[in-house]
Amino acid sequence: MPRYRLDIEYDGSTYAGWQRQDGPHSVQAAIEQAIKSFCGDEIALRGAGRTDAGVHATGQVAHADLTKEWPADTVRDAINAHLQMAGEAVAVLAAKPVPDDFDARFSATGRQYLYRIINRRAPAALEKNRAWWVPKQLDVEAMQEAALMLVGRHDFTTFRSVQCQASSPVRTLERLDVRRSGELIEIHAAARSFLHNQVRSMVGSLKRVGEGGWRPADVKAALEAKNRAACGAVAPPEGLYLTGVRYPGT
Amino acid sequence: MPRYRLDIEYDGSTYAGWQRQDGPHSVQAAIEQAIKSFCGDEIALRGAGRTDAGVHATGQVAHADLTKEWPADTVRDAINAHLQMAGEAVAVLAAKPVPDDFDARFSATGRQYLYRIINRRAPAALEKNRAWWVPKQLDVEAMQEAALMLVGRHDFTTFRSVQCQASSPVRTLERLDVRRSGELIEIHAAARSFLHNQVRSMVGSLKRVGEGGWRPADVKAALEAKNRAACGAVAPPEGLYLTGVRYPGT
Repeated sequence: MPRYRLDIEYDGSTYAGWQRQDGPHSVQAAIEQAIKSFCGDEIALRGAGRTDAGVHATGQVAHADLTKEWPADTVRDAINAHLQMAGEAVAVLAAKPVPDDFDARFSATGRQYLYRIINRRAPAALEKNRAWWVPKQLDVEAMQEAALMLVGRHDFTTFRSVQCQASSPVRTLERLDVRRSGELIEIHAAARSFLHNQVRSMVGSLKRVGEGGWRPADVKAALEAKNRAACGAVAPPEGLYLTGVRYPGT
Repeated sequence: MPRYRLDIEYDGSTYAGWQRQDGPHSVQAAIEQAIKSFCGDEIALRGAGRTDAGVHATGQVAHADLTKEWPADTVRDAINAHLQMAGEAVAVLAAKPVPDDFDARFSATGRQYLYRIINRRAPAALEKNRAWWVPKQLDVEAMQEAALMLVGRHDFTTFRSVQCQASSPVRTLERLDVRRSGELIEIHAAARSFLHNQVRSMVGSLKRVGEGGWRPADVKAALEAKNRAACGAVAPPEGLYLTGVRYPGT
């Protein structure tokens, strides 16, 4: 069966997350339905990252096995046409044929996330549901100092959800950068893979540092505690974006 | 009565426009209700620009006469608190006391608008309702060439709504710039004042040039026709943002 790689963008605000589930609508189900409407195939799409409810993507990657071979641009345009007709806030940015051994989830060698904070006194109107509104002025230099303490190979037990199903809490965080541009603070994170809620947990603790409630060293102590109870409040989903997935040879 | 200037941001997607009206919800009514909830005053807010349904603002300006004098930051924070409680996609960015002769609409000496186009094959997911999706590749240089033909003092009859109530169709367009940044095209417009639907009408014709349906000279001919029927299709509201209002001495 011809396999296609799909690069996907979505506004996660109105979805129960990436993964198909009974009841609430998911991004995965929206795309699977569009594929069924397009060519009749009932497929199970596999995504590189299972984003939570409210989390967005500009660079999610999934693969789909179709019964028939189609030009890649037809796959992209047809799925988009059906997504549009259904009123979904999901778009396929690109489709391309890939070898049978390409697996969007298991072939991935890196994931990049962006977390956006609107840091100003007035609430976010245009960026509502698209960024975390933090009214208290944040100290970005202190946040960056704390972020660097998390980079590297560590046991991230403190920064993972108690529901996380990964067999090991050890991950190698390749990048955690905090930058301000006016009232917008952007936090970029990259790793081979992340634990469940890891980015939002780290961002929540960085925000605590930015507000002055913690010193940067407290983040290091929290990491070393290897205890979920040592984590700052988890940042809300609306600020988080899956921006890209890396594969060998790309 | 102490008068306050309010600088306002809103996501126009869910509003019937700026202006209060019977029935559908407006941005003006949302703020007036928040002021009433805050201090009990039933006021009529005056805005600098009457944006249409679906049009956004990052720099709308309005003035409000309150019964009592309040610290300006209290005015801003209290209105925002009530807007948040009501679930409105509206925020007061700044409030400041102004003299009695300041009129948000009639004192204004300039208005700036931004029009955003997402120019790519895939529909806009995250920018849905926040930009105009145009799938055909647009020639931005041709659009800019056409835009320059509209700058200056002209009879803009071709580019105004038949419902426009202005007594004269003559306006001086100070700026109309077209710029591309990746898949985003930004069109900046500035004038002392605009006719109803003028920006969206001009953008609609520029898009026609960008697609190759018109040459830049056709825009000049349309302007010189002084005939609404000569206008290209009007651009949709979701790409338009009122970004700022200029006042003497600012």
